[in-house]
Amino acid sequence: MAGKEAKGADGGAKGGSNKGKKKEVKKETGLGLTNKKDENFGEWYSEVVVSGEMIEYYDISGCYVLRPWAMSIWEIMQEFFDAEIKKMKIKNCYFPLFVSPGVLEKEKDHVEGFAPEVAWVTKSGKSDLEVPIAIRPTSETVMYPYYSKWIRGHRDLPLRLNQWCNVVRWEFSNPTPFIRSREFLWQEGHTAFATKEEADAEVLDILELYRRIYEEFLAVPVIKGKKSELEKFAGGLYTTTVEAFIPNTGRGIQGATSHCLGQNFAKMFEINFENEKGEKAMVWQNSWAYTTRTIGVMIMVHGDDKGLVLPPKVAATQVIVIPVPYKDADTQGILDACAATVKTLSESGIRAEADFRDNYSPGWKYSHWEMKGIPLRIEIGPKDLANKQVRVVRRDNSAKSDIPMDSLVEKVREVLDEIQQNLFSVAKQKKEACIKVVKSWEEFLEALSQKKLILAPWCDEEEVEKSVKERTKGEMGAVKTLCSPFDQPELPEGTLCFASGKPAKKWSYWGRSY
Amino acid sequence: MAGKEAKGADGGAKGGSNKGKKKEVKKETGLGLTNKKDENFGEWYSEVVVSGEMIEYYDISGCYVLRPWAMSIWEIMQEFFDAEIKKMKIKNCYFPLFVSPGVLEKEKDHVEGFAPEVAWVTKSGKSDLEVPIAIRPTSETVMYPYYSKWIRGHRDLPLRLNQWCNVVRWEFSNPTPFIRSREFLWQEGHTAFATKEEADAEVLDILELYRRIYEEFLAVPVIKGKKSELEKFAGGLYTTTVEAFIPNTGRGIQGATSHCLGQNFAKMFEINFENEKGEKAMVWQNSWAYTTRTIGVMIMVHGDDKGLVLPPKVAATQVIVIPVPYKDADTQGILDACAATVKTLSESGIRAEADFRDNYSPGWKYSHWEMKGIPLRIEIGPKDLANKQVRVVRRDNSAKSDIPMDSLVEKVREVLDEIQQNLFSVAKQKKEACIKVVKSWEEFLEALSQKKLILAPWCDEEEVEKSVKERTKGEMGAVKTLCSPFDQPELPEGTLCFASGKPAKKWSYWGRSY
Repeated sequence: MAGKEAKGADGGAKGGSNKGKKKEVKKETGLGLTNKKDENFGEWYSEVVVSGEMIEYYDISGCYVLRPWAMSIWEIMQEFFDAEIKKMKIKNCYFPLFVSPGVLEKEKDHVEGFAPEVAWVTKSGKSDLEVPIAIRPTSETVMYPYYSKWIRGHRDLPLRLNQWCNVVRWEFSNPTPFIRSREFLWQEGHTAFATKEEADAEVLDILELYRRIYEEFLAVPVIKGKKSELEKFAGGLYTTTVEAFIPNTGRGIQGATSHCLGQNFAKMFEINFENEKGEKAMVWQNSWAYTTRTIGVMIMVHGDDKGLVLPPKVAATQVIVIPVPYKDADTQGILDACAATVKTLSESGIRAEADFRDNYSPGWKYSHWEMKGIPLRIEIGPKDLANKQVRVVRRDNSAKSDIPMDSLVEKVREVLDEIQQNLFSVAKQKKEACIKVVKSWEEFLEALSQKKLILAPWCDEEEVEKSVKERTKGEMGAVKTLCSPFDQPELPEGTLCFASGKPAKKWSYWGRSY
Repeated sequence: MAGKEAKGADGGAKGGSNKGKKKEVKKETGLGLTNKKDENFGEWYSEVVVSGEMIEYYDISGCYVLRPWAMSIWEIMQEFFDAEIKKMKIKNCYFPLFVSPGVLEKEKDHVEGFAPEVAWVTKSGKSDLEVPIAIRPTSETVMYPYYSKWIRGHRDLPLRLNQWCNVVRWEFSNPTPFIRSREFLWQEGHTAFATKEEADAEVLDILELYRRIYEEFLAVPVIKGKKSELEKFAGGLYTTTVEAFIPNTGRGIQGATSHCLGQNFAKMFEINFENEKGEKAMVWQNSWAYTTRTIGVMIMVHGDDKGLVLPPKVAATQVIVIPVPYKDADTQGILDACAATVKTLSESGIRAEADFRDNYSPGWKYSHWEMKGIPLRIEIGPKDLANKQVRVVRRDNSAKSDIPMDSLVEKVREVLDEIQQNLFSVAKQKKEACIKVVKSWEEFLEALSQKKLILAPWCDEEEVEKSVKERTKGEMGAVKTLCSPFDQPELPEGTLCFASGKPAKKWSYWGRSY
């Protein structure tokens, strides 16, 4: 069942071995990861998602079980995002999982982008269906016939809908838990406006929410920018993105995208309205999504050789309280103090639990909860009891300190905030240390070999991007543009494109990616 | 696109006509339903779900678009249920949509129950899959291999997981929005315990939550009871249910079910644990689910000839405020008063909105919001403004009254509570008026022809239930047991089974059902 594909997280460079089987033994015999993040990233990732109890491998390749420890992170992000879009008057709905072929194929560029990955239902029970039915890879073509029906006049605009659902893309390269899976969970927003200005504004409002999910919740720094013509959403006008970076592999990773679809789908699906002057006009549309990939990016960025490292804001349990009894000490007093600590923290809104299991040693529990990435550990032993204090140990930097019981809530809250901030700062420093500005092809190749996040002046020509892809393809995967950052450094007159030698038009990030 | 199947809601007695097309014209020309609930229930239902903006028909039979007006009801119930099960320490997870054939077929009785309705994916892009893959009709067989892996000792128990997801059952008879659809949304809980006592207790705890969803949220009275051996969950030990009843069609409808699976799946999937004595033991399991069907039951029970009637607790908007300006009146003053009313209500947690559209008359708006089933309408005209009051009109009984502005929140809250209570009381009275106690086959047939909810003494023999089914089958569908109610009337010594004449063992509800 487990361990069918312990590969892929290194971005495709290496094959995998049978990790799941090893785990099953380790669960019985001890703790700790057999792979190191710096030495063998792909194997480390496959191991940490299983040992940290986020994922189980499944007997269908590219499908994974999301365990409660992962699901609770998804739910915390969902609660935030759902409330924010509701403030924006965006409403939730649910469209079917299934798409008929005629509808799926209505927008040509769009279907070309998705067709190779579409899963088809052809049978029910023992009978063949009259017509094969597709499973949604995304819902533009599912939804827009109804937008055409519902939108008649300018008073029907804007129409702003969202759905939380599963989608299926039957990918063949390197399935990786969270990062690249054949079924995944996401939200997809689909909106229609009377004017391009309104659509443009929403694209950025949503992108800002995506930035907040990454930076404020997952403590992962991202770069806001625009995708190249080659990399934009199939059938759309332009795509904005929050891009993350994995220093260990030197790969970029698309964090979430907010697309302006322009009027292309409106044309295909005849989404027209009568404007205020009584004239017929076409709507401007957006679509935007983030997925369970977010969780994988967080794991890759923060995890270490002891296991997961969860930012406090998304951890289902923020504080684990562990009793540390000694032979001749007041064991019941310690257990009571642990229970009281959990009670006090819980009542003040801090997510705390105690591990009272009597068949594991405190040491085993420390390792176990470190593997699961719990932000803060509280230890209570006889000395702590006597001194009316608790010992706290941070997961992010292993720092230990004592907190007096009478300032417990205040201090724990402070430490949790510090952990959240520190995770972000460290990740940001690491990412920034990887940024390399290059101006020539030679510098570019050198930076690439050093796993840098490459920022280069570019002529912005599609043919040049294609040629860069062609010249870099190989076992490690081709290099492409990640995004052109909104925050553009100065581009002095006469700067040339690193790849074509033509006049540069903008700065763009380049790299291999997930 | 629309109107492909305006049938089914009458329970299969009649065929359907093309309702969707009619709607499209009506949207332009006027309001009101063309079918009456008492005269033509199936057509009425198909029309009201579309006109009330809950559903759009879809170009794949048995699939429906859930519009925001329906989705928000689902979300309100979900918020309640999810919080309640979390209090019970049940955790959310997410298992894959896809099942491999070997796993699906592991439990024989179970797969026999579902096999004819399973949808199969056989292709991705243009390639055939090596092995066809099933789409989950329910997730017992998806999940339980992992329960076997995760559960080792008694400290791993209980294991209590839940997931919110879509499932697919490719049914062929009478697809009906919400009630019987090929894809639907649900939660499915799957739990494992060390003892039967714990499992038994949870079955009833969950059933009580289902009762609360129906009675406290949807204002629909239900009967708690146990399913017969013939009607229980395939592969389980016993099934408990909350059964609702639709007076207009005289049909029962299974509201939600909470199953004790016993140890049957544990045996098949080898879910064993070491108990406190160090002996190997098998777990006791439950599974339980409620679906978007709940919404359909609510519509059938409360809806009327003016459209939907939503209980305040589940209505996305509880109060609609409509300005009623007159030619020479202070229009701006009226609009301001409407906005202020919405603000005051919203701030106190009442879900209120104003309809300021200037291209519709107040009368049109009244009909529109009645169609959508908004519990309470507030009208504000010049007289109301002068008298510092608002006019309120209840959706459930059309009662009108004036409320002084200075007791707005208090009075509106009172009226909303009354509406919620009244909907439940009226539905309960109607249901109880339909209950008919029968003691012989002749009485049974007569009650059946009168669309009664039949309560009869039964010998509790499977062969007798099969024979009742056989003797009543026909165009209207066969009669079966709905449930044996927990609340059993007295069964005097010597009472005979209405169908077999053998000694009766219990009272049971009988009827045609959805």
